[in-house]
Amino acid sequence: MNPYSGGSSLEANFAAPYGGVTIDFMAMDQVIALHEEDMDVVVQPSIQWQELNQKLEHTNLFFPVDPGPSAKIGGMVGTNCSGTNAMHYGTMKDWVINLTVVLADGRIIKTRRRPRKTSAGYNLTGLFVGSEGTLGLVTEITLKLSPIPENTRVGVVTFSDIGKAATAASKMIRRGIPVQCMELMDDVQMSVVNRAGGTSRVWKELPTLFFKFSGTKGQVADSINQTKETIQPFADTFEFAKDDDEAHMLWSARKEALWSMIALGDEGSSVWTTDVAVPISSLREIIETSKKDIDDLGVFAGVIGHIGDGNFHGFILHNRNDPEEQKRVEQCVHNMVERALEMDGSCTGEHGIGMGKKDFLLRELGYDTVDVMRNLKLALDPHWLMNPGKIFDFKN
Amino acid sequence: MNPYSGGSSLEANFAAPYGGVTIDFMAMDQVIALHEEDMDVVVQPSIQWQELNQKLEHTNLFFPVDPGPSAKIGGMVGTNCSGTNAMHYGTMKDWVINLTVVLADGRIIKTRRRPRKTSAGYNLTGLFVGSEGTLGLVTEITLKLSPIPENTRVGVVTFSDIGKAATAASKMIRRGIPVQCMELMDDVQMSVVNRAGGTSRVWKELPTLFFKFSGTKGQVADSINQTKETIQPFADTFEFAKDDDEAHMLWSARKEALWSMIALGDEGSSVWTTDVAVPISSLREIIETSKKDIDDLGVFAGVIGHIGDGNFHGFILHNRNDPEEQKRVEQCVHNMVERALEMDGSCTGEHGIGMGKKDFLLRELGYDTVDVMRNLKLALDPHWLMNPGKIFDFKN
Repeated sequence: MNPYSGGSSLEANFAAPYGGVTIDFMAMDQVIALHEEDMDVVVQPSIQWQELNQKLEHTNLFFPVDPGPSAKIGGMVGTNCSGTNAMHYGTMKDWVINLTVVLADGRIIKTRRRPRKTSAGYNLTGLFVGSEGTLGLVTEITLKLSPIPENTRVGVVTFSDIGKAATAASKMIRRGIPVQCMELMDDVQMSVVNRAGGTSRVWKELPTLFFKFSGTKGQVADSINQTKETIQPFADTFEFAKDDDEAHMLWSARKEALWSMIALGDEGSSVWTTDVAVPISSLREIIETSKKDIDDLGVFAGVIGHIGDGNFHGFILHNRNDPEEQKRVEQCVHNMVERALEMDGSCTGEHGIGMGKKDFLLRELGYDTVDVMRNLKLALDPHWLMNPGKIFDFKN
Repeated sequence: MNPYSGGSSLEANFAAPYGGVTIDFMAMDQVIALHEEDMDVVVQPSIQWQELNQKLEHTNLFFPVDPGPSAKIGGMVGTNCSGTNAMHYGTMKDWVINLTVVLADGRIIKTRRRPRKTSAGYNLTGLFVGSEGTLGLVTEITLKLSPIPENTRVGVVTFSDIGKAATAASKMIRRGIPVQCMELMDDVQMSVVNRAGGTSRVWKELPTLFFKFSGTKGQVADSINQTKETIQPFADTFEFAKDDDEAHMLWSARKEALWSMIALGDEGSSVWTTDVAVPISSLREIIETSKKDIDDLGVFAGVIGHIGDGNFHGFILHNRNDPEEQKRVEQCVHNMVERALEMDGSCTGEHGIGMGKKDFLLRELGYDTVDVMRNLKLALDPHWLMNPGKIFDFKN
């Protein structure tokens, strides 16, 4: 049982306001407590981040980590996920204040109380975030919230080739221009969005950067001016939304990217999504080389980047009943990861290792570093009960 | 030996440019590599953060974590420290990309490569940051850097009582006004600064908030306007620096706080510095109650707050040869921590546990959570070799 006041989680779940309502407890998707003045909220793991933000609307606060629309907070903790807002707001690990965790031996611990800042002992919160369920079962999460920015503007910029788009993005980052989001979509992905027809306009089928600027009025105006100035030498066209509807429309192409790709497939199709991350100066090279590799291998893939973080995705459409095509897709992912590692990057920026990238993790960090992770798991889960087979194996 | 390219640390230290220069290796205070375009730097642990920033001046980049002027990067990693910039820039854990660590069994690991964002396996970087040297010996650190903001303005605001200052600060945070620093000093501390005479003016001996605003011109102007609007109902006087010299002068009182207190003492004197952190809504209450308690106990203490983070310090001047006074100081610290814990806060926001707060850590997180920390230490350091006696004991 949780040893101190303020967080007896399982008790809280069985007690009012959930007393007797078994279905609520089973769903594990409730807001347990909202501390509006402290700007934090205590939730159960199965709540979706979008649903959480709907419930927070009246407070003028929001939870800024924004992965795919269906993602749940528990899964987001598991993979240390992020999304388009990460450039300004950071990733999941930056927004978790504490976790209630059931350990393999049945002990229930709470990793922290509720201060927004602390140096009290090991950062267990940071260890459980991103551990993909292999260290314990998270039953309750306290999240920081942020005031909703006063003003948000959205802009879309096209480029004649992807190298120019990547260079413009690097220059934005290096200059430190305050931007909430900076997202890249390549020509293939823009054409996929057009073909799927999920948005209300026809897009130029060119490499495109999507921007969100937010903050005070003066800050947004300055950021837009500095952005124009910085990317002018590289860009073809600029378009800034006049109002919220137009902003929503401009942003929709980015948000529809994955669904557009899925919509293009038929019964035998799958979309393989993968992600890597590299130091910023390598962005242009890895994106250009990966695009070329995609063409050379003859696979059909869009390149989508959280480019402000040096992180990008390949969305690869393929026929899962065609073993030859499957092989080419595997080769494509393999090459992308190898390239990222050569550049001192990571085999995953936000998706996690799971079962598919265990070998890459070993390549990325080496046997000893992964073995330290294994030592830590064994210390908490000696019988290997918690989500076995993920991240690394019992023995490599 | 480090198993992958890009970080064979000990080798690098013995090789050029350090080959033969034993003193450099022994000092462990060198910049190993500066990746200007990636906005990161690889350093040895004994370099001071101020010295590092001097070495970075030509790049228009800086390392934003700013604790006491003499602090070294290795120690800052150990305690997950922060400073006045934490409100905007976060704490040490947010700025470490990777660590090279010598483990108790002699293995040398590197926790990450150099991506700014990753979800590849457990966040070992985040585990070693704040572990106070109890898990391994850090020999090399890769730090993120940030572009220096274009504009910085400094402001000083006085209040007739400390409750009003704390309330004004809470309202600033809740509204999300972008501020780089928001620091509180109480009337006692302001009078200490005057008596020590280390700054070039005489200050009003009133509770005072020190602000730093930074960013684009428009952003700074908006932030100052919104700050005036928000704190107007509570404040006595506003003063904004006209130029850099005045800014430096206004900020000097804050930076001189600890040294001013030390300067007031005589041969038998010590300054006991302590820190706690609480959820934001409890700031006013804990500061007011702690001030009253200081008066009731008859100890001489200034209250200094990184109030933007819900974190504040007591600087307590006392005679270390007077056991009665020593007892009262201990009581004062004890009461401050107990109060923070009652408010769901932490016994330390940035100083760490060390030997002095081990009992408080147990009170804060409970036996099981601290025992999980012990399990993790035992997994990496079964013979309890690394900085023993810190954070928790072998057996509680």
